[in-house]
Amino acid sequence: MEQMNANPFHGFQLVAVSSSKRMLISTKDTCLKPVAWKDALNASETPVDFSAVQSTLRELAEQGETAVFIDNTSSQAVAEMYPGLLDAGIAVVTPNKKAFSGEVALYQGIVLADAKRGKYLYESTVGAGLPIISTLKDLVETGDKVLKIEGVFSGTMSYIFNNFSAVEGSNESFSSIVKVARAQGYTEPNPADDLNGADVARKLTILARIIPEMKDEQGNFPLLHGYRSVETTSLIQDAPSSAVSNGDEFMKWLPEQDTHFAQMREQAAGEGSVLRYVGVVDVKNKIVKAELAKYPKTHPFATSLGGSDNIIMFHTERYGKRPLIIQGAGAGNDVTAMGVMSDVLKLMRP
Amino acid sequence: MEQMNANPFHGFQLVAVSSSKRMLISTKDTCLKPVAWKDALNASETPVDFSAVQSTLRELAEQGETAVFIDNTSSQAVAEMYPGLLDAGIAVVTPNKKAFSGEVALYQGIVLADAKRGKYLYESTVGAGLPIISTLKDLVETGDKVLKIEGVFSGTMSYIFNNFSAVEGSNESFSSIVKVARAQGYTEPNPADDLNGADVARKLTILARIIPEMKDEQGNFPLLHGYRSVETTSLIQDAPSSAVSNGDEFMKWLPEQDTHFAQMREQAAGEGSVLRYVGVVDVKNKIVKAELAKYPKTHPFATSLGGSDNIIMFHTERYGKRPLIIQGAGAGNDVTAMGVMSDVLKLMRP
Repeated sequence: MEQMNANPFHGFQLVAVSSSKRMLISTKDTCLKPVAWKDALNASETPVDFSAVQSTLRELAEQGETAVFIDNTSSQAVAEMYPGLLDAGIAVVTPNKKAFSGEVALYQGIVLADAKRGKYLYESTVGAGLPIISTLKDLVETGDKVLKIEGVFSGTMSYIFNNFSAVEGSNESFSSIVKVARAQGYTEPNPADDLNGADVARKLTILARIIPEMKDEQGNFPLLHGYRSVETTSLIQDAPSSAVSNGDEFMKWLPEQDTHFAQMREQAAGEGSVLRYVGVVDVKNKIVKAELAKYPKTHPFATSLGGSDNIIMFHTERYGKRPLIIQGAGAGNDVTAMGVMSDVLKLMRP
Repeated sequence: MEQMNANPFHGFQLVAVSSSKRMLISTKDTCLKPVAWKDALNASETPVDFSAVQSTLRELAEQGETAVFIDNTSSQAVAEMYPGLLDAGIAVVTPNKKAFSGEVALYQGIVLADAKRGKYLYESTVGAGLPIISTLKDLVETGDKVLKIEGVFSGTMSYIFNNFSAVEGSNESFSSIVKVARAQGYTEPNPADDLNGADVARKLTILARIIPEMKDEQGNFPLLHGYRSVETTSLIQDAPSSAVSNGDEFMKWLPEQDTHFAQMREQAAGEGSVLRYVGVVDVKNKIVKAELAKYPKTHPFATSLGGSDNIIMFHTERYGKRPLIIQGAGAGNDVTAMGVMSDVLKLMRP
């Protein structure tokens, strides 16, 4: 919303704003200004009514306007609305990974090609504001063959292992680093939701489904029914259910794992390597996996990575000898908002 | 053209193909197929007639078709046609740097905003197929503030210094490395045209003009009248004119410089650094420069770079602590064609 305010010349018209409880919606006589939306939304007594939002947007679309539904939730229910919105000529922009990494039926309901349908853009689902999806689509659409995508896709995992297994060595325990990460807001409220690898598996699913070679002759994705099809190494597979369901319980349990992680770190260091939690889409061998792997200390995942950066390498026929690499902050409010906003701007360009 | 052939489903219609001498043009009764264009063009007896091409494209544009003029030359004369083409509603896609890095008047004649004009895309002028210009535009248009752009923008310079001043040390003479680069086709026919830094200065001009803070209140670019305004360190400033104008003469002269370059390499190594020919757009200090600089052996320009890679770092308010980095092959036929082709596809999306 700040980015909308900063760019009034783009000529947006805000039709509705909704939280999970309340909403603001424009009428024939009133319009919404993005400036004071937060207070106004908190004061609103209008309950959420997506069908009203949809019919307002549909009217605009029918008048030839670019009507955009922006889903900034991580809700499955909202994701399931996309096919209906698109059919009504309403465009969808979202950082919500659910629709693109979940059941293949929903995904196929979205990507159905029909010129009359609304368009959908979801750049910010992978790497936030980094141009990952657009670059992959450019490669594919201009006829390059993707051989392998390999990267650090989780800002949280990046932060944790850049600190836990630094090139110059490190002694801190795994749980103490996770504790700092949690305190600084780099993790989900329960770090279990990062350390189980599901976020990386979702991002891999999103990318792999863009690659034609991952499709079979029937247009299905044999390896990508949903993100659960990704071979995913959970870092907390031994966690008791009380820890998986409660962040504070989880933090109490985690130190039990410190010896295990320290051993892995030591073994890697003995081989001149560091630990990184990576995602791989190996197109040639048809393997999609999220795992904790060892990389030599001279590898870009070791030398070049810091903070909570994402780094993604595209190995393709054209970028054969040396991959195309994109790196930078892959999480955070403003860079995610940038990904959303630049998608919206792409839809609005005449 | 190969990329067009590989993607027949994109629904292109080839209207005309031209070399500097001959052309092929479709008529009401005939169409052109991109498959056998090379032989057909060589056999053509039709002299080049851009006004015929332009009027054919204008007709298509007037019928509401997306008419695209692709300039794959490096010609100033062709670049000067862009404003007229755009005014006729014809889009322009090009890897030709001339129009965007030359006299500011031509540039301003191109960027004039008018919804009825054709659009122009020039991604491949910087970094070939790498998403450099689109990323910079996304940053700027979503309201981020660019603080500094810093990078290795020349594939030729990258190859030469990655080998001449490697992290692990190197002993080869400067001229011998240039000789190999020339033999492998990594340089212009006369390497003087790479080593004078003008190519980097042009790319910096193109990028810097996209940054609003580089503009004054009158919409002019005080530091960017043209690429000659860039503070450019030529690596061959002592070359006699006979060497500057003739590649073979240049290669005979170059060994005279070997001691000079070896000294610089030794000095850098003594400081734990390597030499890289970089371009910098320092927005805060309003400095645009292309120079041979020293970078610590731990810097990504040292550790991460190889081959003839480009690497570009965007330091912005949002990507504050750690820059957004894009890296990969920045020259070569197929990656340049990819940049052109993805621009064309962007114009054709409904």
